[in-house]
Amino acid sequence: MNTRKHRGILPAAVIQQRCTADREYNLTRSETLIRQAAEEGARLVVLQELHATPYFCQSEDTAVFDLAEPIPGPTSERLASLAKALSLVIVGSIFERRMAGVYHNTAVVLEADGSLAGRYRKMHIPDDPGVYEKFYFTPGDAGANNGQDAFRPVDTSVGRLGVLVCWDQWYPEAARLMALAGAEMLIYPTAIGWEPADDEDEKARQLDAWITVQRGHAIANNLPVLAPNRVGHEAAPEGAGQGIDFWGNSFVCGPQGEWLVRGSQENEEVLLAEIDTDRCDSIRRIWPYLRDRRVDAYGDLIQRVRD
Amino acid sequence: MNTRKHRGILPAAVIQQRCTADREYNLTRSETLIRQAAEEGARLVVLQELHATPYFCQSEDTAVFDLAEPIPGPTSERLASLAKALSLVIVGSIFERRMAGVYHNTAVVLEADGSLAGRYRKMHIPDDPGVYEKFYFTPGDAGANNGQDAFRPVDTSVGRLGVLVCWDQWYPEAARLMALAGAEMLIYPTAIGWEPADDEDEKARQLDAWITVQRGHAIANNLPVLAPNRVGHEAAPEGAGQGIDFWGNSFVCGPQGEWLVRGSQENEEVLLAEIDTDRCDSIRRIWPYLRDRRVDAYGDLIQRVRD
Repeated sequence: MNTRKHRGILPAAVIQQRCTADREYNLTRSETLIRQAAEEGARLVVLQELHATPYFCQSEDTAVFDLAEPIPGPTSERLASLAKALSLVIVGSIFERRMAGVYHNTAVVLEADGSLAGRYRKMHIPDDPGVYEKFYFTPGDAGANNGQDAFRPVDTSVGRLGVLVCWDQWYPEAARLMALAGAEMLIYPTAIGWEPADDEDEKARQLDAWITVQRGHAIANNLPVLAPNRVGHEAAPEGAGQGIDFWGNSFVCGPQGEWLVRGSQENEEVLLAEIDTDRCDSIRRIWPYLRDRRVDAYGDLIQRVRD
Repeated sequence: MNTRKHRGILPAAVIQQRCTADREYNLTRSETLIRQAAEEGARLVVLQELHATPYFCQSEDTAVFDLAEPIPGPTSERLASLAKALSLVIVGSIFERRMAGVYHNTAVVLEADGSLAGRYRKMHIPDDPGVYEKFYFTPGDAGANNGQDAFRPVDTSVGRLGVLVCWDQWYPEAARLMALAGAEMLIYPTAIGWEPADDEDEKARQLDAWITVQRGHAIANNLPVLAPNRVGHEAAPEGAGQGIDFWGNSFVCGPQGEWLVRGSQENEEVLLAEIDTDRCDSIRRIWPYLRDRRVDAYGDLIQRVRD
């Protein structure tokens, strides 16, 4: 079913950056970092979640919907032009206006020829104090409500990409569905950080959990994972809390969960990894989890609770 | 739905031991270590996979079926008497003879009053060179083939135990189904080790993957994980390879994947952890993954491949 287009070593970069209130500045900065990745040989570059704007979900504000844009639209077209100019694949992240009243948190995949290879609308939407995403983002469609269409990877010249977004990264179901659809890697554009008030032990546990659960998806599915995350402190609107310290630590790991590259906690960085795209196949021969899945006994996974 | 019987701190032990060809020696050794755990205050003790025997799956030998026994049977009754004498819950692991031609790799849960609280028959059965489990073990039932009955936790005086076995530990589906059925912890009696011929880097990746994927289940389900694993070299039957170096490293982690205790690579050990059984509830309030599952879009999880 899967016509692999890329074999061997794939140089791939994840980028972590600070964002300001100035969209033009942010996109220009992304472009600079993407060009740097291209110079270092990257054929795939992944940006963090909502890289064109500050993380605007720290409060609920109807004016924020003005930041949304269609796809294709200015940001996706700018990324597409850059992908074509540099002849590489870019995964970007856009606050998508689908129509009045329907907005999504959407990853876009731009092919090396400048075309839109595909998109993924975030399926799992978080919501907690300071992270009011359910106010802004309609969840991605499940298709015809038959569970057949969601969590579909995007075919590109560098492989079949299992693109998910941030909160999806805590859900083994999402990773598995991408793997079963032939994804050759899992990709999680992310914006996650600490509340400044949390103590250091709690912060360490949260960061370690974020890394470990994603490395767990790599291992359970024998797939590489690419996870760029934003860095820097972003203040909250007045009265809406202490802001968020985005924790960086963007990383790429291989299909045994092994480390390939990991970013710092505070700096903007281009992190390049050499992904061995043949390795998934060889790992699946000695750790054949997919052979032994008990599909006859998994029916309750579509239950909310087995009560 | 879940009437919790235990609240607060639960002292729980995982035991790793070497096994010989002498079943009586192995069981006496387990008893000694269980008594030690009881003296240290444990109210729950978990033994490794197939603790009464060597790991007999290194070759395919019909005579090995003589090692199997019914449940209740000699080993389960011995563990039951010990559970009653020490007033604690024991999770053991037995090569179960269900009838001629139907054998299972079964975990048993013995209540502190000596009763059989429940059992779990290993659902995912591995098979690779030196690990010929498909020859010996019929997979656990999926119930009436409706996906409703398998992966059910066992209720005990120390909580609702999500007991799984070894190879199950690589399957996020198994952990999730236990969590959705109200399991308060995940338990994986294990026998896993290295082929002596593997190089040190590969050995390190495998051990780290084994730990990480299970810590990932803890994180994704906000549940503690208890994983005892056998230690020591066990030779293979003549002509059946170089044997297995069981890697120990038994561990217990909390519901954020945080370390509570971890064993050595070579020694027999009783590893005691203090599990805060209230912590799952509080973690689930700030990391509410279960709230946001896309049960409308998970239907394909019962497909072998989405092709």
